[in-house]
Amino acid sequence: MKKLINSVETVLAESLQGFGQAHSDLVKVSFQPQYVTRATPKESGKVALVSGGGSGHEPMHAGFVGFGMLDAACPGEVFTSPTPDQMMAAAQAVETGGGVLFIVKNYSGDVMNFEMAEEMLENTATVLVNDDVAVEDSLFTQGRRGVAGTVVVEKIVGAAAEAGADLAACKALGERVNAASGSMGVALTSCTVPAAGKPTFDLGEDEMEMGVGIHGEPGRRRVASMPASEIAAEMVEAICESLQPASGDEVLLFVNGMGGTPAMELYLVYHAATQLCEARDLKIVRSLVGNYCTSLDMAGCSITVTKLDAEMQRLWDAPVKTAALRWGL
Amino acid sequence: MKKLINSVETVLAESLQGFGQAHSDLVKVSFQPQYVTRATPKESGKVALVSGGGSGHEPMHAGFVGFGMLDAACPGEVFTSPTPDQMMAAAQAVETGGGVLFIVKNYSGDVMNFEMAEEMLENTATVLVNDDVAVEDSLFTQGRRGVAGTVVVEKIVGAAAEAGADLAACKALGERVNAASGSMGVALTSCTVPAAGKPTFDLGEDEMEMGVGIHGEPGRRRVASMPASEIAAEMVEAICESLQPASGDEVLLFVNGMGGTPAMELYLVYHAATQLCEARDLKIVRSLVGNYCTSLDMAGCSITVTKLDAEMQRLWDAPVKTAALRWGL
Repeated sequence: MKKLINSVETVLAESLQGFGQAHSDLVKVSFQPQYVTRATPKESGKVALVSGGGSGHEPMHAGFVGFGMLDAACPGEVFTSPTPDQMMAAAQAVETGGGVLFIVKNYSGDVMNFEMAEEMLENTATVLVNDDVAVEDSLFTQGRRGVAGTVVVEKIVGAAAEAGADLAACKALGERVNAASGSMGVALTSCTVPAAGKPTFDLGEDEMEMGVGIHGEPGRRRVASMPASEIAAEMVEAICESLQPASGDEVLLFVNGMGGTPAMELYLVYHAATQLCEARDLKIVRSLVGNYCTSLDMAGCSITVTKLDAEMQRLWDAPVKTAALRWGL
Repeated sequence: MKKLINSVETVLAESLQGFGQAHSDLVKVSFQPQYVTRATPKESGKVALVSGGGSGHEPMHAGFVGFGMLDAACPGEVFTSPTPDQMMAAAQAVETGGGVLFIVKNYSGDVMNFEMAEEMLENTATVLVNDDVAVEDSLFTQGRRGVAGTVVVEKIVGAAAEAGADLAACKALGERVNAASGSMGVALTSCTVPAAGKPTFDLGEDEMEMGVGIHGEPGRRRVASMPASEIAAEMVEAICESLQPASGDEVLLFVNGMGGTPAMELYLVYHAATQLCEARDLKIVRSLVGNYCTSLDMAGCSITVTKLDAEMQRLWDAPVKTAALRWGL
């Protein structure tokens, strides 16, 4: 295992310390329990957005804490759900009367723990994200998995909460964005969990995992290596089969790196995906390319398509100031 | 070779097309010859900043084209200098009376080609960046190599040019920032150049290349794997031996990913580096962590320290709006 770490026991704590130091203008990192909040709290009375999940998907979620997006994030150990005490402490730290909306990726551990936190708090609601069209049911979850589409949900609902939308409106909007989003991933290599010390799965030199999950869960099929445009075609096809966009629909096209893939390749995949969208008469009105929802050091990428209505476009464009997404401020 | 590409011949063109499409609000990509310019030109009469170099270091340099940073970037083939015709076309496209400042990383091919372009143009100057403290003379250059410190030079000089500084002032400032910057890198794995199809160098499962160049050039020594804090210690020691910062100096601390290293590890290295800087009584006043000057899919990172005077701090903080660096706008 080749990693820039000191010990597998301290990876998360040391990384979070570095994150807090590098972005002390944006965030505050709390330990025992671990959670990340904004350095400058949101105005009182507005809905507080709290997300979280296993670590190893950075910048998700701590990199999205800040003005116009999340109020708090709860990082669990690598690929392990955070615990209810983290969620409760984070929620209590950021709640100012408007209630708390939890944004939860659909993995059984996360769902269970966020539910436990919700039961012990008042004035909360949850948006469950399950944008991964690759498979139903998987290694860690029932139903579809939540992956990179979560970034889109957090950005758009974050803007609405910042603008003063109430808890019910934020929840409804989050569910609308989730329903309008479809994603699929591909792995060229496995990730390696530090505590395991070896690749999560074996992949031959000429193989790829099509439809891989962000923890290295199996996808739709193990295939021989293909050109990028064929990979993109299979992913866009699967997404559109699920989303059923209409001719002329306006979309956000998002190519997400899994952590070990350079920008040069992500932009190449983006180019291939634009051609596929245009062939379906989809109008790409917003773009995002980069490492946003990763799987440690996995080489590969995912494609997300979100059908954007006018309100979503306006909220996507609203100012955001976080470590990983920033514009307008 | 596992890469998201279609063919080794078309990697660069397809990637640039994707980059231009994803950031059409920020940049315009020209082909034949290839260069990237701002979508919205700088005000007339101001100094135009043009950089460039081999591709494979994304987001450098095209990701830094935009308000407050570069006016144009010339991408060569992977790890290959751009040609004088690219530089001349780019310079002519963005020159509006204030002259052109070329920002050039110190590699013999780049230096020679930028010199040829300069000879055929009027009202130009060059800043040569050679921040890599690892080795004198290397596979592709005489003297020290130019690496991630180039990002700092481009940001700070970009802000000065935007504010109306003249050509001589921009050149002097760039040289001052370069002299105030020191960097060193480490590789845990080799990169793989698409056209070569195999790793640039061999590295054992328990080996690292300390002081590696951004093309996989040899560094100071081949060493057994070490904990991140020891790696950071050797790098910060080497940088400080060159920079000779005084106790109490204010610095920018920049941890740069080589392309295949996840954010979690970069923040962990950043944390280790902060402790080393503090032990030397350096005051970290600005931070940057992420993939900014990469080496294709190489796993590893570099550390850059820049001694920031008050003017440099002000210019670092000035608004910037590019694909890869963005704040204040």
